[in-house]
Amino acid sequence: MNALEELIDSLSRLPGIGKKSATRLAYHLLQADSSFLQRLSLELATLQERIVKCSECGAYTEDDPCHICSNNLRDRTLLCVVATPQDVQTIEAAGEYCGLFHVLGGLIAPLEGIGPEKLSLEKLLCRVKSGEISEVIIATNPTVEGDTTALYLNRILESTNVKVTRLASGLPVGGDLEYADKLTLSRSFRGRVKF
Amino acid sequence: MNALEELIDSLSRLPGIGKKSATRLAYHLLQADSSFLQRLSLELATLQERIVKCSECGAYTEDDPCHICSNNLRDRTLLCVVATPQDVQTIEAAGEYCGLFHVLGGLIAPLEGIGPEKLSLEKLLCRVKSGEISEVIIATNPTVEGDTTALYLNRILESTNVKVTRLASGLPVGGDLEYADKLTLSRSFRGRVKF
Repeated sequence: MNALEELIDSLSRLPGIGKKSATRLAYHLLQADSSFLQRLSLELATLQERIVKCSECGAYTEDDPCHICSNNLRDRTLLCVVATPQDVQTIEAAGEYCGLFHVLGGLIAPLEGIGPEKLSLEKLLCRVKSGEISEVIIATNPTVEGDTTALYLNRILESTNVKVTRLASGLPVGGDLEYADKLTLSRSFRGRVKF
Repeated sequence: MNALEELIDSLSRLPGIGKKSATRLAYHLLQADSSFLQRLSLELATLQERIVKCSECGAYTEDDPCHICSNNLRDRTLLCVVATPQDVQTIEAAGEYCGLFHVLGGLIAPLEGIGPEKLSLEKLLCRVKSGEISEVIIATNPTVEGDTTALYLNRILESTNVKVTRLASGLPVGGDLEYADKLTLSRSFRGRVKF
């Protein structure tokens, strides 16, 4: 295998990139600006050194604790529980939420052998019991695993007297009743709100 | 910008990778095997040093001349003219052709300001005139630019008394008459072959 084939092989191991896309990328990189290539190479080499998990919330960060946990202007009585570090970024990008986060590190999925013991639940309970938090917002995906995890969280948080809420599920903005699936439609009926 | 955002920014400059895919890739790489990341980084950093253009045919190679030009078992009387180094790999992968190659480095495209002077034509004429070659197979894409370039090549090669052919254009194998466009259908009529 020559250098080009090696690169194509490595690139095609990335998610969503098949052999054809990898070939296209490799030929593009071959003709790319050399400084861009060196920068990308350096960024890859140092990525895992520079980015760590925040010891407080579990999100990816360069500084520990992360800029969210260490920001005193944020509402420290709100705690949003998400499955992955990427979810933190997605919610931050929406710009709606101004409280703290807690990353579970996955969702309960018995079929894949992921039980509650694999999630960051002790730390969550510890943070909730520490006193400042008044509401836990569960922001797991509205999927079977997300729903299961949300129910489980609700049960273990019952004893703490903290308000537990969950993100609304229903029709997406700009969506069309005609194309909504049955489950989404039935959820948006059950979760209907007063004008 | 932190390390993760820098990587997402760099990845999203690659062709076919938008902001969302770049984010997905970056988070994947963050959790990937560290040795894989180091290998990919090294491959990117050394790519442009290790891969050069063959001084004979213009294809990408680690050794100059490339393994095709230096292979004495190949038919040195056949010369296949292609637009890009990637086309060489595509044709080699099909395993049908066993002659030599010549990479033009592009196609004539007046609208993009690419005239014949930007292509490797002198070198091509020089190779054809050197004597060994008996047939030049033009393997440019059946597009406006590819057709224009093929016609131009045919004209400048007329004086050399070498046989000039072009790849057949017509219905793709496994295709359906119903879905063939008019141009393809008309070409497959004009290029019909005797049983």
